[in-house]
Amino acid sequence: MDEIRDRISNTLTIEDNRLVRELLAECIGTFFLLFIGTADYIQNAASDFGNTTSCYIVVGGLALCLPYISQPMYSGAHLNPAISFAQWVLGNIPMWKVFLYTIAQLIGAYLGAAISYFGHHDDLWKLDGGKRQVLGSQGTAGLFTTFPSAHMSTWGSLLDQILGSAILSGLVCLISDKRHKIPTGFVPPVAGAILCMIAMTFGTNGGFAINPARDFGPRLFTLCAGYGWEVFSAYRFYFWIPIVGPMIGAIIGAWLYKLFVGLHGLNEDIQISSKGYNVS
Amino acid sequence: MDEIRDRISNTLTIEDNRLVRELLAECIGTFFLLFIGTADYIQNAASDFGNTTSCYIVVGGLALCLPYISQPMYSGAHLNPAISFAQWVLGNIPMWKVFLYTIAQLIGAYLGAAISYFGHHDDLWKLDGGKRQVLGSQGTAGLFTTFPSAHMSTWGSLLDQILGSAILSGLVCLISDKRHKIPTGFVPPVAGAILCMIAMTFGTNGGFAINPARDFGPRLFTLCAGYGWEVFSAYRFYFWIPIVGPMIGAIIGAWLYKLFVGLHGLNEDIQISSKGYNVS
Amino acid sequence: MDEIRDRISNTLTIEDNRLVRELLAECIGTFFLLFIGTADYIQNAASDFGNTTSCYIVVGGLALCLPYISQPMYSGAHLNPAISFAQWVLGNIPMWKVFLYTIAQLIGAYLGAAISYFGHHDDLWKLDGGKRQVLGSQGTAGLFTTFPSAHMSTWGSLLDQILGSAILSGLVCLISDKRHKIPTGFVPPVAGAILCMIAMTFGTNGGFAINPARDFGPRLFTLCAGYGWEVFSAYRFYFWIPIVGPMIGAIIGAWLYKLFVGLHGLNEDIQISSKGYNVS
Amino acid sequence: MDEIRDRISNTLTIEDNRLVRELLAECIGTFFLLFIGTADYIQNAASDFGNTTSCYIVVGGLALCLPYISQPMYSGAHLNPAISFAQWVLGNIPMWKVFLYTIAQLIGAYLGAAISYFGHHDDLWKLDGGKRQVLGSQGTAGLFTTFPSAHMSTWGSLLDQILGSAILSGLVCLISDKRHKIPTGFVPPVAGAILCMIAMTFGTNGGFAINPARDFGPRLFTLCAGYGWEVFSAYRFYFWIPIVGPMIGAIIGAWLYKLFVGLHGLNEDIQISSKGYNVS
Repeated sequence: MDEIRDRISNTLTIEDNRLVRELLAECIGTFFLLFIGTADYIQNAASDFGNTTSCYIVVGGLALCLPYISQPMYSGAHLNPAISFAQWVLGNIPMWKVFLYTIAQLIGAYLGAAISYFGHHDDLWKLDGGKRQVLGSQGTAGLFTTFPSAHMSTWGSLLDQILGSAILSGLVCLISDKRHKIPTGFVPPVAGAILCMIAMTFGTNGGFAINPARDFGPRLFTLCAGYGWEVFSAYRFYFWIPIVGPMIGAIIGAWLYKLFVGLHGLNEDIQISSKGYNVS
Repeated sequence: MDEIRDRISNTLTIEDNRLVRELLAECIGTFFLLFIGTADYIQNAASDFGNTTSCYIVVGGLALCLPYISQPMYSGAHLNPAISFAQWVLGNIPMWKVFLYTIAQLIGAYLGAAISYFGHHDDLWKLDGGKRQVLGSQGTAGLFTTFPSAHMSTWGSLLDQILGSAILSGLVCLISDKRHKIPTGFVPPVAGAILCMIAMTFGTNGGFAINPARDFGPRLFTLCAGYGWEVFSAYRFYFWIPIVGPMIGAIIGAWLYKLFVGLHGLNEDIQISSKGYNVS
Repeated sequence: MDEIRDRISNTLTIEDNRLVRELLAECIGTFFLLFIGTADYIQNAASDFGNTTSCYIVVGGLALCLPYISQPMYSGAHLNPAISFAQWVLGNIPMWKVFLYTIAQLIGAYLGAAISYFGHHDDLWKLDGGKRQVLGSQGTAGLFTTFPSAHMSTWGSLLDQILGSAILSGLVCLISDKRHKIPTGFVPPVAGAILCMIAMTFGTNGGFAINPARDFGPRLFTLCAGYGWEVFSAYRFYFWIPIVGPMIGAIIGAWLYKLFVGLHGLNEDIQISSKGYNVS
Repeated sequence: MDEIRDRISNTLTIEDNRLVRELLAECIGTFFLLFIGTADYIQNAASDFGNTTSCYIVVGGLALCLPYISQPMYSGAHLNPAISFAQWVLGNIPMWKVFLYTIAQLIGAYLGAAISYFGHHDDLWKLDGGKRQVLGSQGTAGLFTTFPSAHMSTWGSLLDQILGSAILSGLVCLISDKRHKIPTGFVPPVAGAILCMIAMTFGTNGGFAINPARDFGPRLFTLCAGYGWEVFSAYRFYFWIPIVGPMIGAIIGAWLYKLFVGLHGLNEDIQISSKGYNVS
């Protein structure tokens, strides 16, 4: 037994290719984000339809563990194409990496929603009687991807996504800024608290996507799982808003942080160049 | 692209003027306090009118991030004119700085309420049908500024603000006292827990202001946003209580801490002079 | 102004008398425990009678700050005669100190309940219409001191207090055991989590006293505040149970910890004598 | 008194036998897990039947303290036969140790449920009128051991246990991986957050066992306490699922972590052999 285990271990160890490990980390992290996130929504719906408080708590709590996963691989854990994109705008990573990260994140998000779907199969059957529906009192697509509240206008929804993502992006810059001297093991729970905070301020109206991968990956999955094209057409083709909004918001947030905090180094700090890894 | 970014960065970097950076930090911090705080109240009201528990949680949670914002600029993050005033009474900052800080905090509070107002425009429309009202079942001014509970007397409200601010001020002295050896990155969450604690003990009766900037800035904004002078005249001109009460309370709290804990240094501690930075 | 402040500071500084500072710390800490704790109960009762969840949260949250208060004075922060008594049984402090600590804790508890009473005067008036009553739907004595649930027998109540205090005492030994290498600033929040845990497992039946000072100090205050001798005679003279129970429980918990964990040092640890300060 | 205490202490100190101390630690830790966990369920049921939110919170919160108990004895604190089994599969401990650990954990779980049963005797009497019943509106066996939701199929229940245990096992590997540099005192609360997260995603359907000792120990106790063989036969002999499911899940989780994260060491890390203590 020991020998077999060692041989398998040695074969599968990736030593040399840093990029592969980075993509793997992004993929697993986003997988976990969706796996836990959607499982939480489904369990809540199946046991007591409509209770969102504990959803928010788990959304915050799960973030505790996500960055821990990605840390040994590389320092980053974007888990969000909008964050990757903002890092390119800030000059921290090249454009081709943004594309590769985004693909890895989408695959992870798709798989996370899929495993959650199969793991809670009995619950979904209880909720919709076996007939997958997007909207209505028996609709379950909203447990995987996001839809806006009924009273939201298109511009209101877009603004909602922009503001939520701007807070996320700005605060991610903040907590990953080395000058704050946040202890390493303490960054992930703070990130969890930030997600929790956004959920409670810009969460209910637009479904709390603030992440194109978190929204588009599961939306693709629901399409494949037999929910039909309505997952894209519902609410006046809402699906583009959680893609475009977070991109805009993430850039705004990152630049605001840079303008108001990042650029102005204290004397006792290491003088950070605008090239190196200024705010992330 | 890289060149443009670098040029913008270099132009906007503030290297030499420490005071400007301090005021900037106070302004952003208070902006964020109000932006998140009021957005939280509005979302709660729009989705499930009257649920205050999650409001308290976010009020505590947001405080996680506020001091992180101000830390790289200077060590302080008062975000509250009453705390700045108490620091003058303790001899830690000069009087003219208290005035400048207060102005920066008021500007930040005003802007925070404003962005929150525009970001949750659809929600406010849902709540009051487009007609801004201060009081009553469709009144929304209380989501921005504070009003007392119906059963409170004037003296009871003032005492409420004094006690809440005294707890805040005393405990801020406590957690910023270097002798407690609280790890740097851990102070902000403890500050958040303190806010949460005050919200749950002296929060509901007086609206949990304990901060003149947090109350007066948004009150000014609601006046400008068309709520009318009633935001000042309501509840027997309540508006002066969250200004005067916190000032008195902050001084009491800071002096009580100084008398009972701050003055009595342990042998193994650095002997702190009453001049240097004794309790803050 | 500066001169006056310095002169006052110098006069009031206690440099030499360690015992006075220890007693001061116990007094302030217990004061704060009761001040926050009872204010939390009163606010909850006045705003939404009967909601206990947020009470539990604040009971846990407040413990964040209590030990921070006492730390600069001396290392300990019992805030509980039962804990002091257990420390004597373990041989860590002499008997006369237990008596002095207990007196300091009782004074603090009495004052904490008193300030909370005056700070929430309007709320109490709202609850009972100005006539102080111990029991019944308008009774408010239970907001200060503790009474058992209706279905509890005397022996069940005593067992409840013994078990709750044993958990507290054992876990206090645990988290203050230096061998666990819990970072200094992190012990108080863990203590808060422990209080929260006990509240949720042995909290509702006996009123969650597990502390003679927390129970007897406010009971004396309610007697003085005009509630009458019924605060002692109610529920078959329940008052002795939160005094005797915690004493027994604290000793059991401390000894259990010592037997199962404390005595067995690892090789790499400093060999702890059974005399020095073995488990606290 | 001092002399007696010292003699008792010296007699009972276990210095030399590391295995005995390890087993003692597993026994106490699992005892505490069940003692607190079931007491929490009973108190909740007795005060407000059916409220599960605070149960989840305490389930998470209690985990704060469990690993602290076991730390001074040895580094591990499995408290779960499935975790011990997974450690054998990973080659970290020998098979005979898995058996001994499992026995110690079962004894602890049995005793924990028993003490909780006697400590909340008045509450159980209130709930079922003195007649112990497994199922139905007055059934209390579900407060000690676990039963599935009514709508769950056998395969769904098994999948639920496998997924929950896989998350637990994978994340336990994650947080005990030295390369993440989580501060020592900070691991237990993160473990608590993980338990809380699993409770909210794969908790309600299968009763949140994910631990053979946590389920089988109390089940044995309820049999002895007069609930009858129905505790084993209920829900189509459900009892085997929380034994087999966690075993499978724990191995899957540990290997997934090893494959995706554990095997790929960063350059700056200590190169970890696949033999030593690779992921735990």
